[in-house]
Amino acid sequence: MRTADFVAARLAEFGIEVHRGLAKTGVVGTLKAGSGNRAIGLRADMDALPLSEESDHPYRSDTPGKMHACGHDGHTAMLLGAAKYLAESRNFDGTVHFIFQPAEEGEGGAKVMIEEGLFERFPVEAVFGMHNMPGIPTGTFAMRKGPIMAAADFFFITVRGEGAHGAFPQLGIDPVPIAAEIVMALQTIVARNIDPGKPAVVTVTQIHAGHGTNIIPAEATLCGTTRSFDAAVQATIEKRMREIVVGIAKAHGAKGEITYERRYMPTINTAEETDLAAAAAIEVVGAENVNRNVPEVMGAEDFGWMLNERPGAYIFIGNGKGASLHNPRYDFNDEALALGASYWSRLVESILKAA
Amino acid sequence: MRTADFVAARLAEFGIEVHRGLAKTGVVGTLKAGSGNRAIGLRADMDALPLSEESDHPYRSDTPGKMHACGHDGHTAMLLGAAKYLAESRNFDGTVHFIFQPAEEGEGGAKVMIEEGLFERFPVEAVFGMHNMPGIPTGTFAMRKGPIMAAADFFFITVRGEGAHGAFPQLGIDPVPIAAEIVMALQTIVARNIDPGKPAVVTVTQIHAGHGTNIIPAEATLCGTTRSFDAAVQATIEKRMREIVVGIAKAHGAKGEITYERRYMPTINTAEETDLAAAAAIEVVGAENVNRNVPEVMGAEDFGWMLNERPGAYIFIGNGKGASLHNPRYDFNDEALALGASYWSRLVESILKAA
Amino acid sequence: MRTADFVAARLAEFGIEVHRGLAKTGVVGTLKAGSGNRAIGLRADMDALPLSEESDHPYRSDTPGKMHACGHDGHTAMLLGAAKYLAESRNFDGTVHFIFQPAEEGEGGAKVMIEEGLFERFPVEAVFGMHNMPGIPTGTFAMRKGPIMAAADFFFITVRGEGAHGAFPQLGIDPVPIAAEIVMALQTIVARNIDPGKPAVVTVTQIHAGHGTNIIPAEATLCGTTRSFDAAVQATIEKRMREIVVGIAKAHGAKGEITYERRYMPTINTAEETDLAAAAAIEVVGAENVNRNVPEVMGAEDFGWMLNERPGAYIFIGNGKGASLHNPRYDFNDEALALGASYWSRLVESILKAA
Amino acid sequence: MRTADFVAARLAEFGIEVHRGLAKTGVVGTLKAGSGNRAIGLRADMDALPLSEESDHPYRSDTPGKMHACGHDGHTAMLLGAAKYLAESRNFDGTVHFIFQPAEEGEGGAKVMIEEGLFERFPVEAVFGMHNMPGIPTGTFAMRKGPIMAAADFFFITVRGEGAHGAFPQLGIDPVPIAAEIVMALQTIVARNIDPGKPAVVTVTQIHAGHGTNIIPAEATLCGTTRSFDAAVQATIEKRMREIVVGIAKAHGAKGEITYERRYMPTINTAEETDLAAAAAIEVVGAENVNRNVPEVMGAEDFGWMLNERPGAYIFIGNGKGASLHNPRYDFNDEALALGASYWSRLVESILKAA
Repeated sequence: MRTADFVAARLAEFGIEVHRGLAKTGVVGTLKAGSGNRAIGLRADMDALPLSEESDHPYRSDTPGKMHACGHDGHTAMLLGAAKYLAESRNFDGTVHFIFQPAEEGEGGAKVMIEEGLFERFPVEAVFGMHNMPGIPTGTFAMRKGPIMAAADFFFITVRGEGAHGAFPQLGIDPVPIAAEIVMALQTIVARNIDPGKPAVVTVTQIHAGHGTNIIPAEATLCGTTRSFDAAVQATIEKRMREIVVGIAKAHGAKGEITYERRYMPTINTAEETDLAAAAAIEVVGAENVNRNVPEVMGAEDFGWMLNERPGAYIFIGNGKGASLHNPRYDFNDEALALGASYWSRLVESILKAA
Repeated sequence: MRTADFVAARLAEFGIEVHRGLAKTGVVGTLKAGSGNRAIGLRADMDALPLSEESDHPYRSDTPGKMHACGHDGHTAMLLGAAKYLAESRNFDGTVHFIFQPAEEGEGGAKVMIEEGLFERFPVEAVFGMHNMPGIPTGTFAMRKGPIMAAADFFFITVRGEGAHGAFPQLGIDPVPIAAEIVMALQTIVARNIDPGKPAVVTVTQIHAGHGTNIIPAEATLCGTTRSFDAAVQATIEKRMREIVVGIAKAHGAKGEITYERRYMPTINTAEETDLAAAAAIEVVGAENVNRNVPEVMGAEDFGWMLNERPGAYIFIGNGKGASLHNPRYDFNDEALALGASYWSRLVESILKAA
Repeated sequence: MRTADFVAARLAEFGIEVHRGLAKTGVVGTLKAGSGNRAIGLRADMDALPLSEESDHPYRSDTPGKMHACGHDGHTAMLLGAAKYLAESRNFDGTVHFIFQPAEEGEGGAKVMIEEGLFERFPVEAVFGMHNMPGIPTGTFAMRKGPIMAAADFFFITVRGEGAHGAFPQLGIDPVPIAAEIVMALQTIVARNIDPGKPAVVTVTQIHAGHGTNIIPAEATLCGTTRSFDAAVQATIEKRMREIVVGIAKAHGAKGEITYERRYMPTINTAEETDLAAAAAIEVVGAENVNRNVPEVMGAEDFGWMLNERPGAYIFIGNGKGASLHNPRYDFNDEALALGASYWSRLVESILKAA
Repeated sequence: MRTADFVAARLAEFGIEVHRGLAKTGVVGTLKAGSGNRAIGLRADMDALPLSEESDHPYRSDTPGKMHACGHDGHTAMLLGAAKYLAESRNFDGTVHFIFQPAEEGEGGAKVMIEEGLFERFPVEAVFGMHNMPGIPTGTFAMRKGPIMAAADFFFITVRGEGAHGAFPQLGIDPVPIAAEIVMALQTIVARNIDPGKPAVVTVTQIHAGHGTNIIPAEATLCGTTRSFDAAVQATIEKRMREIVVGIAKAHGAKGEITYERRYMPTINTAEETDLAAAAAIEVVGAENVNRNVPEVMGAEDFGWMLNERPGAYIFIGNGKGASLHNPRYDFNDEALALGASYWSRLVESILKAA
């Protein structure tokens, strides 16, 4: 909340119109210049709070409960920098909406802002996002047309057998080997059912059954995540999971139940806007420092929901090699700040070119 | 503790010498008659406290934390009844040790009493046990020569892989499918490696891995129990489990560890003492009400440790059909009380026959 | 055929009435003495032809196509010896039917003789069988009341998937991992669904799929055998197999088909006839050389069909330790010949006691 | 052989120098024009014989023994057409080697020609290949820089257990469930061990074990193919396969053996030559009919070996929609003939531009 207050105060100082309340702590700053009625949105994710474990940039910690910041303060700073510059220079013709999106999954994020009317209140022809990326050298940008971050679905499976004493398995329906068979069968989805040329992941992250050492439990639970970029692949994964869970449990006289949630859209860049983003990045760091064909990343990003509504492009800004992934001392590389702010500014000035 | 006090007080009232302290709350009453120096032991399990989930008579609850009495108060009552009668009638020649054994696993039980010198302090030529059994009609007894209750071993497995983000399985070593493979492979021990004519059980009662929905955990843990009657079968189970756990984990670049504990001996009746027990039972209820070839039970009983030290016989006394297994309203059938006490008395009078 | 001719010629020489034609090459010799109208049957399996791989005494070769005689010539010789003695001495009162049964599975055997009217044409109050057994010392007999040889069922499974190029698994339904899952799931029948105290076996003896190195086949086939002694166990095995094969195939979009044939009855000795057999054996070799509680054997024997029709007993005659199982040089131990003939003779003389 | 004779005769007619003998039936025609000493190779695969099942263009039949021509006669015709035109017009400066490669796997193909000195005898700066592709519209071409066809490896696995009678599994080491576990474990390679963004396939195309219905076989054999584009992925697949086969067999007391053959290199187009091929194709059918970013294909092509030696590009020429994949009536679309010949000609004229 204090971050949102801070952001709102800065925007107001810069003379930018401030709108609050979307997704509770979301802040949108609106800046007009010239007489043009074109408008674009620039989005930064703003995280004042501990990260939820559900967000999963590839450089996230894998230690539950020991989350670290992943540079969202840097993202906020870069967009504020651009806002200040653009508010002062006003060298563009049209409207820029600076979207400071809270990323906490439970409460808000991109999807909630959209559901609460983001694009109705702030109509834009395109929307842009940017994320820092350790492992990509400082001083460079990277992007790709089409899918750049994956769809992330989550599943929750229950195998209902029948408890019994561990010495009398014949009196129950043991859910443990049934759950094990399901885990093995789930491996065949990626290995057999999906076009090998189309990236897909099915990961069982949890399996739990039983409390005692001599009691066959009545049920086993599993959960996990799937990743894909392609709607048909995503549909095949869900369909196969349902068939496997229900079918294998039934083959053993048990009941298999699955809840399958599509939580993150894939983040899919449109071609034209990716070219615009690349052009702006090239102006900042030169063509030799812009990778226009970075491989897609199986991690997910809720900016996908925005790109599902509007054309746009999501790009990576290099965070250097020094700060390795999953490192508790990870910190945003301040060298990237000026480059990021410049990118945003050039992007606005090139799309909403002043007459 | 109050049960032990009660037992000790009764024994003292009957004029029986009381010894306390073995396995903390164990009570041994010693009664001599005549001049003979033969001695036998009669054991009742005495449970004033909630049953631990580790003991596993077949009629135990399978709901952890909702344990019910399984008639040990009845066992105590029957042996006290016999003690009273024998102390009054003294129609035998030798020594009877009434062994009231606490059954709580953590603190005491048969094994602890033995380790603390039970049979050195109270030397007996044979030891006898009895347990009520729902499902066997009241008014009957059942027994068998050789194994009557199983050996119960317990195992604890850890599969150490390498955590990773759920979207990047290639960066870790996922312990979940490895644990699943191990569960499936363990099924082959009973199905392929053990003589089908020799009863054996391998049950995985718990499997646990993971905390988040998008994080591949670093390890999975499994535990469970195995049952067998035969030393070679037991050895094969342990050997195969070790090979499977270590081997399959290694095949996937993980580390499989197993702790295998032999906690309960099989309860194996000696032939001569089983005949003596049968004869005593027949005197009480008639030959037509004594089943001398009841099937062995995969449940375990720590009386096996006593039979590992001394000859003897462990028999079942029918508890009727009314009180079904695992029933929270299970109660000891009082009709069995007099029959049980008579059995104990006849057994003593026939083995230590008065001149 | 030459064996049947030989047997028929010998019986005729002995003055025994010869009946031929049952199960094509079967021979029944009928010998009456005294005026009694009681009758018993003695059965020997007679093998002039190579053994079919379907018969499965435990000491059979496991090398397909390299079958060896398993002593059926010895069985024939022993029964002929007894026939000769009994025809000469006629020290009994009633009728003996000497049943020389061809054992070739495809054409004949016990089941065919029965279907063709064996017990209508030759009514007997009881029927007896005997088989030599390497591993049991020469000079001894062994038997047990109740089940002595297992029921043998055979199953034939087809998994129908959909062929595809090996590089494009997503275009087909690969039957190979489905068949593998079925194999693993079948292990859980014995391991989880059958009372551990009741012997059972489920063995997949064949799995076949595919012809090329880069073509996913359209189907996989499996076959094998199951063993059991108990009708409920047998029924559970069949039911679980059907559920597993159909259910797991369906869980993967394939079609699982199973043919389950109950080919051999369990061989179950009746109590009274087993006592009679034991008594006869004791007369021949002494009580110390008769094991009345030999463990049941998971192998199958078509004499089970005869015991399904009439009371009787099937016993083992020791063949010594010299001729090990599966040994291509296995030969019938001639020392057993006289003992076997004597057993048959004493059995007849004791059951059909002369006035 | 008759095809090779036919090709050689035509080339000679056109006045082109003919070289024979490489890979037995291979034919190379050498045509020089002008004074330049640059040289390029154009390769057509020439199949006079039935296709071996080992070659695996995606549109190959999946019915073993019912192979069909896959248009190699068309490939030969197109290259002969270009040879005729170029020999007549000679509108280029340098040398063209027309490589008619026999594709039969056992005897010859690209690898054998190279081993027998193809590029020493006919030094070229670049080499080009083309294959017709049903499913791509007639009148179009398709290609991509980098990997376009996969590496194809083949594996042969033996699981050596120990045979036993099917009723006595405890006496042997049953290779069938071990093979099943290996099949399931192999699924985890693609599902868990390979970067989801990098295409990979592991297919078990054959599994065979057993002959009888009641005999546990001594061994099981499996074989199949793997596909990949990336050397590190290929290495991971091979490493993981070895670990799984050896490790799982060992976990069960069996012996797992694997032969892993790297038979086809990936077909990897170099960037500059792909641009040259695209330019030539555009000249023939226009830019709107040239797909420069066709997805990579998991099928393999032995032209990969040539591209492993020299720069070059392998492209697809559309064969239309009419002739579907795996269709026994598949036929080369003659409409493509002129386009293919024109492509070859334009390619030569543009690379070896006449002064």
